[in-house]
Amino acid sequence: MTVRPPPGRLRVIGTGPGPLAWMTPETAAILAEATDLVGYAAYVARCPPRDGQIRHESDNRVEIERARHGLELAAAGRDVAVVSGGDPGVFAMAAAVMEAIDRGEAAWRRLDVSVHPGVSAMQAAAAAVGAPLGADFCAISLSDNLKPWEVVIRRLTTAAAADFVIALYNPKSLARPRKIFEAFDALRAVRAPDTVVILARAVGRPDQRLIVTTLADADLDLVDMATCVILGNSETRVIARPDGRAPWVYSPRSVGTSEGGR
Amino acid sequence: MTVRPPPGRLRVIGTGPGPLAWMTPETAAILAEATDLVGYAAYVARCPPRDGQIRHESDNRVEIERARHGLELAAAGRDVAVVSGGDPGVFAMAAAVMEAIDRGEAAWRRLDVSVHPGVSAMQAAAAAVGAPLGADFCAISLSDNLKPWEVVIRRLTTAAAADFVIALYNPKSLARPRKIFEAFDALRAVRAPDTVVILARAVGRPDQRLIVTTLADADLDLVDMATCVILGNSETRVIARPDGRAPWVYSPRSVGTSEGGR
Repeated sequence: MTVRPPPGRLRVIGTGPGPLAWMTPETAAILAEATDLVGYAAYVARCPPRDGQIRHESDNRVEIERARHGLELAAAGRDVAVVSGGDPGVFAMAAAVMEAIDRGEAAWRRLDVSVHPGVSAMQAAAAAVGAPLGADFCAISLSDNLKPWEVVIRRLTTAAAADFVIALYNPKSLARPRKIFEAFDALRAVRAPDTVVILARAVGRPDQRLIVTTLADADLDLVDMATCVILGNSETRVIARPDGRAPWVYSPRSVGTSEGGR
Repeated sequence: MTVRPPPGRLRVIGTGPGPLAWMTPETAAILAEATDLVGYAAYVARCPPRDGQIRHESDNRVEIERARHGLELAAAGRDVAVVSGGDPGVFAMAAAVMEAIDRGEAAWRRLDVSVHPGVSAMQAAAAAVGAPLGADFCAISLSDNLKPWEVVIRRLTTAAAADFVIALYNPKSLARPRKIFEAFDALRAVRAPDTVVILARAVGRPDQRLIVTTLADADLDLVDMATCVILGNSETRVIARPDGRAPWVYSPRSVGTSEGGR
């Protein structure tokens, strides 16, 4: 009698934006069980160390290769966690794993693969200042190595003209350091200069920095790869607070009534 | 010497979409400390019972009154948790609390108020089927008691025309049971009939039901108040799987290259 190897599996998880206090218990349990972690080194570093667990750390720019590697390990019987920061479903590894399956070996469609939700960067950024995502909103990645820059600009200006709150991911890269400037030029053509802008860097981590400013005044030199930028809608409000307390920001749930009701 | 009462505080939290496995440790810790829970009864019911904690449960339609009640309790020295389902910052109580402060007593601006992120319904829905939110996306509430229906339809069709993935919250209500039908009529005018649609009901809860269908074929009678509807973009793909396994759905991270690369 031959002993069959245990079937492998692949679970796509997100650590949340930084502290373990934002990692779901489901994700923590998966990290405690997995034999192999596959992910960008900075995200794998957020996972509590565990004896015997193999960490396959990779560079930031190789999502599909990383996904294939995870699938190969699972197909070989390993218990794999593919690790994203934030929510794996929002500009992260879940889509890369699905794409790798779609284009990959037929046998991968039989694998036990699952995706597990987490807290994404825009949610932590929003919570840190109040409730800027409280109205209809969009999330747009400025990463132009995956889509034409014209598409990015068209989506941005369309969403801005329809008065969505907008969260921008991947606002800067080494390859295109000026794209956030170009994006803001496009936004300034369709939104008022006093539109609220939040520059939320590394929220929840030791190097957190929160700036509440406006479309006209935002200092875009402060935006880096760890920054989530949130642009309010036309009704987003700043609540000033006394004695040097940081202001709160929120987008009213209602449209067209915030002034009338004041 | 007078003993001053301890200062109160108010923390806005979200339970996640259902199971405790999706509630962050931060939120669980807040629930374990709070003297008072304020929230819609169905969400308060998700919080583990605790001796001595007072639960102020309310109806679904009184967000601002509920927020004011929480602020009054905090101003009186209580340790208040205002409880949302999902993420409190996404169509939930964080914006209501901020609005109540903005329109309320000046002293409330000195209160210790904070918002804590959670997993929202669309994220759980997306994870359950793969990665449909893997590209640029919008979240739109169909609740028309807070904004004119024309605004809802304009945002929907604008976002659809710009090829965003779209997550719809509050797709049905007793007051307007036909609005999801009207929304789909508008979407069908700008998107192809074979656009992928996901009807994700009560994800993570015992009565979960997941349907992967298309814009042409979606049975909207199955949509209720517990359903999150996700409409794919023009490149969202369904991965068929063998032997009766449920299909996976994902939106490629790249634009305009998914066919070329196949």
